[in-house]
Amino acid sequence: MWRDIREDITIDRQGSQPLYWQLYWQLRQLILQGKVLPGMPLPPSRQLAQQVGVARVTVLQALDQLAAEGYIARKRGAGTFVAESLPLPPVPRSAAPTALPPLSEWGRRMAAMLEADINGSAPVRYLARGGETAVPDIIDFGFGRTFAHIFPYDIWRRLLARYLGADDIILARYGSVAGFAPLREAVADHLVRLRGVRCTPDQVVIVSGAQQTLDILSRLLLNHGDTVLVETPGYRDAFDLFRVHGARLAALPVDEEGFPTEQIPANSPARLAFVTPSNQFPRGGSMSLPRRLALLQWAGRQDAFIIEDDYDGELRYDGHPHAALQGLDEDGRVVYLGTFSKVLFPALRLAYVVLPPALVTPFVQAKRLLDRGAPTLTQAAVADFIQEGHFDRHLRHLRDAYGQRRRALVQALQTYLPGRARYAAVAAGLHVMLYLDGCVEADVLWRAAEQGVRVYPGALYHVQQPSPPSILLGFSGLSEADIAEGIRRLAGVFGESGV
Amino acid sequence: MWRDIREDITIDRQGSQPLYWQLYWQLRQLILQGKVLPGMPLPPSRQLAQQVGVARVTVLQALDQLAAEGYIARKRGAGTFVAESLPLPPVPRSAAPTALPPLSEWGRRMAAMLEADINGSAPVRYLARGGETAVPDIIDFGFGRTFAHIFPYDIWRRLLARYLGADDIILARYGSVAGFAPLREAVADHLVRLRGVRCTPDQVVIVSGAQQTLDILSRLLLNHGDTVLVETPGYRDAFDLFRVHGARLAALPVDEEGFPTEQIPANSPARLAFVTPSNQFPRGGSMSLPRRLALLQWAGRQDAFIIEDDYDGELRYDGHPHAALQGLDEDGRVVYLGTFSKVLFPALRLAYVVLPPALVTPFVQAKRLLDRGAPTLTQAAVADFIQEGHFDRHLRHLRDAYGQRRRALVQALQTYLPGRARYAAVAAGLHVMLYLDGCVEADVLWRAAEQGVRVYPGALYHVQQPSPPSILLGFSGLSEADIAEGIRRLAGVFGESGV
Repeated sequence: MWRDIREDITIDRQGSQPLYWQLYWQLRQLILQGKVLPGMPLPPSRQLAQQVGVARVTVLQALDQLAAEGYIARKRGAGTFVAESLPLPPVPRSAAPTALPPLSEWGRRMAAMLEADINGSAPVRYLARGGETAVPDIIDFGFGRTFAHIFPYDIWRRLLARYLGADDIILARYGSVAGFAPLREAVADHLVRLRGVRCTPDQVVIVSGAQQTLDILSRLLLNHGDTVLVETPGYRDAFDLFRVHGARLAALPVDEEGFPTEQIPANSPARLAFVTPSNQFPRGGSMSLPRRLALLQWAGRQDAFIIEDDYDGELRYDGHPHAALQGLDEDGRVVYLGTFSKVLFPALRLAYVVLPPALVTPFVQAKRLLDRGAPTLTQAAVADFIQEGHFDRHLRHLRDAYGQRRRALVQALQTYLPGRARYAAVAAGLHVMLYLDGCVEADVLWRAAEQGVRVYPGALYHVQQPSPPSILLGFSGLSEADIAEGIRRLAGVFGESGV
Repeated sequence: MWRDIREDITIDRQGSQPLYWQLYWQLRQLILQGKVLPGMPLPPSRQLAQQVGVARVTVLQALDQLAAEGYIARKRGAGTFVAESLPLPPVPRSAAPTALPPLSEWGRRMAAMLEADINGSAPVRYLARGGETAVPDIIDFGFGRTFAHIFPYDIWRRLLARYLGADDIILARYGSVAGFAPLREAVADHLVRLRGVRCTPDQVVIVSGAQQTLDILSRLLLNHGDTVLVETPGYRDAFDLFRVHGARLAALPVDEEGFPTEQIPANSPARLAFVTPSNQFPRGGSMSLPRRLALLQWAGRQDAFIIEDDYDGELRYDGHPHAALQGLDEDGRVVYLGTFSKVLFPALRLAYVVLPPALVTPFVQAKRLLDRGAPTLTQAAVADFIQEGHFDRHLRHLRDAYGQRRRALVQALQTYLPGRARYAAVAAGLHVMLYLDGCVEADVLWRAAEQGVRVYPGALYHVQQPSPPSILLGFSGLSEADIAEGIRRLAGVFGESGV
């Protein structure tokens, strides 16, 4: 028994925790650490209160909590005792280990994959060290940034407020796993009208993003060691997902006509292909019709699926966007992926997938195991945003705004870097990939950073190494003036050093 | 060449699709279906316009789209021709197959698991047919419904509006994968103050729900064939996730003191345990201190992890909730799961996990592969909701409201079913599990439905079959009057038939 508990207990009257909780917690620690022994009596509550300097009711509350959780036992007429027979560890434990715990095969594959990226790859090191550049007014050609001020926030607020105001119940229910029905209908209608997709709302599932879709499809369709046909250069995040599922990537080099279907080896065991037909990522350009038809026939012969990532198919600046590959599919071979992140705003975290009829049930079942669906409120607001015509109007604004920025970029390239870099002619998307023949890519990146321009390594997107020297310029987050100034600075890299 | 194209083209002037798109699409279908042959000339645009009955500019737009996509080719001075050498399929294709496609091992495991549930299990059939009951004023003791009107929607709207109004940029960025930093801090602070968790904000990751956490942990920690220790009865959705990852479930039957640690076989190969220490799901009751300490020591010996699902740890109606198991962990063995779905509202789709330091990096890396994080706007609003004291206040209101409902339920059970059913004494959570010794569970369910009461099969939650006859009553979505009336009707089931 303590003679004076003041040595062991410190009450912080300014702390955020209630006094009784502080007392409970410290007594508990004394018990757990073996500083007071099992079976030992505690001082009477009145005495404890006096020693610690709190009200007796506070002590009683603390003792109640300790008793309820089994740290102490009250014996009628005999007082309060530290619980007996608690299986306390014999020695003080060490600090929590921070070394990597033994992971599963999946976990080790992931760790090894990321480790290899960081150690083996100059571009990843460049990206990882990105923040260090000292130039204050750096112009960042980051990809995937959107120009925040274009979005009609006032309309968006009004739509959200509509549901926040009128329909509390919509917040109080779990949504449907496949998505909020009116949004699925709105998406189906939009895709049929504007993207040449052929589907019913039943085939549309609302997801949190393209990564979730790729993950579920990988689980459903890929066994360890399976082959996936991909484009090079291509969408790295998809590659990572396929690889972490244990798949092999068979990468075919794209050209002006996109994915070279005719180069698929006749004996390829692949039963999945991942392509970006509308605007090849990141090179640019549209997949030609003969290659599209041939790819669909390949899928039919192989009993394979094709994932069509239409990540920015709506953003084409010369004429109407090409219709989706999915619309040519008569056999239920194509899974179509679209996202609201680029055309609405990234923080929305909403995307959609159009599934062949045969895949709908397995996909929704898998999704149910993994998550309960996107927030209903946001889905309801987006559905209205589409159905009331705001989406079409917003897309037109985006095409104007981003089209201007792309023209500014191309003009700056022609002014400051004439003949120095190759890039796809098709005006689409939110970035341009520059091929810099005869340069050392890493040099360009570092020197550009010194000049106050942040550009992104093409090597990241190529499966085969070494890759042709190239850099990625995202233009969607920059003003036209910054775009011009950025390219002017970039030209300095070539002028000065002749890299 | 067509003599008259009117037979093949139908323009719908009332349709939602632009006229040029309708023309484009129908010409395209004629080409794809081989009704006009490769190399065939098209009528001049003026003639086409006349035949179809649209403006010439509309025809030119359609032809532009067809040309851009490669369906037709324009030869200077010679007119417009259907593209040659399109690899069209030789025969008309059949309708899209709707049979299950060849799935991966994961996919087949999932399908088999769900198939077995539906075919093998009376409770699942009962649930699947749930909607058929004809009684109009059915009282539904569904679990997981929340009482929508308790939530302070006005405050929530104000917080959302704060960010919708002032900070557009918050919508325009992808959030951090681990979560919005102020929310991670608010959650850490809340858990330390009120749940006896010991953690820094770095250990907190915001997730879309408990399922996402369990999925990522399963991937990181489980190989095919690994054993997971679970409670029976227990949380079925977690079981499904472990099983779909190929794990074996080793289920130990819980009693009044929760998970029976002492029954873990000495030679068990398990390196993962899933427990609900604060309020055992669905039986009720708190895990005793000796068992908690013994479980932590088991994890240390086995190099194992413990998942503590604190799904409703904040909802205790007699005294302060018991502190979390995580707070006893000195070795970094416990992963703590919490959710906002039950205490805020389900449609929010936000939950959190507190990870041991060693698991933070792999978990966040895996999450980055799968999704880009929860919507920033919602996270910001929830962070303020917590930090400004609304959350604590709301929890008190919830405890009052749900505590009253639980008391109403217990009172009704004492009035209408005295001595007929056993249930846990601890007043916590949003449901009560009734054990109905000597009854046939399925009979109770069906007869209750006939009486206009919907109750839920206990068998669903038990791993071993046959399970003790039991039913689950969720009370969080019902008024006190409905609760009393529901139990009165339920008593009729026993009175009349003596099941």
